[in-house]
Amino acid sequence: MMQSLGGDGEVINKQVILKDYVTGGTAKESDLEVISTRTINLKLPKGSDGVLLKNLYLSCDPYMHACMNKIENPSIDIVSFSPGLPIRGFGVGKVVDSGHPKFGKGDFVWGSTGWEEYSVLSRLESDNLFKIDHTDVPLSYYTGILGVTGMTAYAGFFEICCPKKGEYVFVSAASGAVGQVVGQVAKFMGCHVVGCAGSQEKIDLLKNKLGFHEVFNYKEEPDLEATLRRCFPEGIDIYFDNVGGKMLDAVLVNMRRNGRIALCGMVTEFQKDKPQGVYNLIHAIGNRVRLEGFIMSDYLHLYPKYLDFVLPLIREGKIVYLEDLAYGLESGPSALIGILTGRNKGKQVVVIAKE
Amino acid sequence: MMQSLGGDGEVINKQVILKDYVTGGTAKESDLEVISTRTINLKLPKGSDGVLLKNLYLSCDPYMHACMNKIENPSIDIVSFSPGLPIRGFGVGKVVDSGHPKFGKGDFVWGSTGWEEYSVLSRLESDNLFKIDHTDVPLSYYTGILGVTGMTAYAGFFEICCPKKGEYVFVSAASGAVGQVVGQVAKFMGCHVVGCAGSQEKIDLLKNKLGFHEVFNYKEEPDLEATLRRCFPEGIDIYFDNVGGKMLDAVLVNMRRNGRIALCGMVTEFQKDKPQGVYNLIHAIGNRVRLEGFIMSDYLHLYPKYLDFVLPLIREGKIVYLEDLAYGLESGPSALIGILTGRNKGKQVVVIAKE
Repeated sequence: MMQSLGGDGEVINKQVILKDYVTGGTAKESDLEVISTRTINLKLPKGSDGVLLKNLYLSCDPYMHACMNKIENPSIDIVSFSPGLPIRGFGVGKVVDSGHPKFGKGDFVWGSTGWEEYSVLSRLESDNLFKIDHTDVPLSYYTGILGVTGMTAYAGFFEICCPKKGEYVFVSAASGAVGQVVGQVAKFMGCHVVGCAGSQEKIDLLKNKLGFHEVFNYKEEPDLEATLRRCFPEGIDIYFDNVGGKMLDAVLVNMRRNGRIALCGMVTEFQKDKPQGVYNLIHAIGNRVRLEGFIMSDYLHLYPKYLDFVLPLIREGKIVYLEDLAYGLESGPSALIGILTGRNKGKQVVVIAKE
Repeated sequence: MMQSLGGDGEVINKQVILKDYVTGGTAKESDLEVISTRTINLKLPKGSDGVLLKNLYLSCDPYMHACMNKIENPSIDIVSFSPGLPIRGFGVGKVVDSGHPKFGKGDFVWGSTGWEEYSVLSRLESDNLFKIDHTDVPLSYYTGILGVTGMTAYAGFFEICCPKKGEYVFVSAASGAVGQVVGQVAKFMGCHVVGCAGSQEKIDLLKNKLGFHEVFNYKEEPDLEATLRRCFPEGIDIYFDNVGGKMLDAVLVNMRRNGRIALCGMVTEFQKDKPQGVYNLIHAIGNRVRLEGFIMSDYLHLYPKYLDFVLPLIREGKIVYLEDLAYGLESGPSALIGILTGRNKGKQVVVIAKE
């Protein structure tokens, strides 16, 4: 709802701000605050070569929890959020005003933006936006399967895991934004796909909606090593690791020779003062296992190829994509905190406006 | 010393036997026993297609400690030693009698053999022996730099670490059998090489004899992360991991983007009931690091190529190889146990006889 404050296009710009750096481990809802005290002019200043964006959909991603801490180690390409300012993440927006040659008023775009109703992006920031050419699919998908998380699944699975037809694939956090894409793409490639999640509802979704060959609720399995042995009597060729910790340990003893592990999310590691240890790396020697960390942004050159691959599958219903939509910026803090405990079913998105 | 017991060539065959499976973690000298109660006939039975070997040099390797336990998990290709029988390992021997078409009396060979003065190897076991064609270098080298440990260094460094000239290489247990070869080969390839070891004496050897660019004594460094940051202000491209545990953790936060870690020995993991955890795997994501376990035996096809590479370097003194020789089978148990605590300086070898 735009609230005009005068003749010069000045409106209230609701924002989700970080109150202060998170200390002592896990972020809480109260570390964030929704404020309506700032205003924004809906025209860019003359001569600006950036973009003014109306934010529509915001993506909730585990890495954002790391950004709420004061990050000391500059080698990791994650930047701390600034206390007092809106947090940032990936989102879908509509161009309200533009001095950038690539974008015009009314264009839909996705990329890094602020958790606020309107964002002014600099030329540099705008250069990294992606113009949305296909609007026959839900725009919110560009926060996920058609954006960062889809590309994460695609790059991680094809470039890191190097799948072959008939291989045994395990996906943790399988109903999550990345996991559900990995699982379905793996199945599409002729792999045998097992997924795990943390509730009966998610298990049902994986089995009945997403077509995983086998699924289990890790919270109900006291001995994860034995569970994986049961699900993979031949062992695991590929593990797409979204959680790290104990599950990775249980996987390491169940890997097949020359298996590949894509290190992706490690969401469990964001929840703790001291991360869980991994104790079974020694099994990677005997089983000749490769573990490899990756960051999606290294693979952005594959994005057009990925769209060519995935858009037809979405349109034909061969890939199903589950979203958990939270409405309004006010719901942002709880939505973002909720993904750490797995409250969401499918990709967590905050909807600010539909257009 | 051959002790004849009759006209039929029967002699005493001194052996190092495993008394019983090791329980409760670390093996002790008293888990092994040297016995002189068995005899052997120095002629193979008629029709045998195996080999009778006089064992000369025995290799002491960390994996042998795992074999002293009752190994439950058959997926790791390490077989338990049998209580009451001689332990087994790699060694150099001289053929005393042979029914095998590839080997004749007087040939020197290396391969898997028993910890005893003489071993009878079956046809299958003999098939896996390597004939030693080059005897102008010390025969004991075939337990190490010209045998399994050399091939481990070569395969791990070239096939897993994929070195490029000018890269920054870190080697743990750098004065050990594998480490010293990796370090020197890396230097030869134009890399900047830093090694660590656990005593001043070893540090001196690394610096003065093996030509490492920089070395440190990990026992004197309270903050390994900081030490590595000091040694590698640009970060580490390649880590050849012979120890696992805390050192691996300190390395993970100091890796450069797209770094490679060869998971090799993890000797620290053989010493404990419960292995040390690795807590910093999450850094492998941001830094796009690949960790890969490997087993030398997958790369035996490269052995001729490796000999062509390394023999000239040894003959020209461009690669130095340090051995710690223990004389007599009686010294075997303490030599084997000693490698876990790093008592040895260079590759630990047990010398039974010189020819």
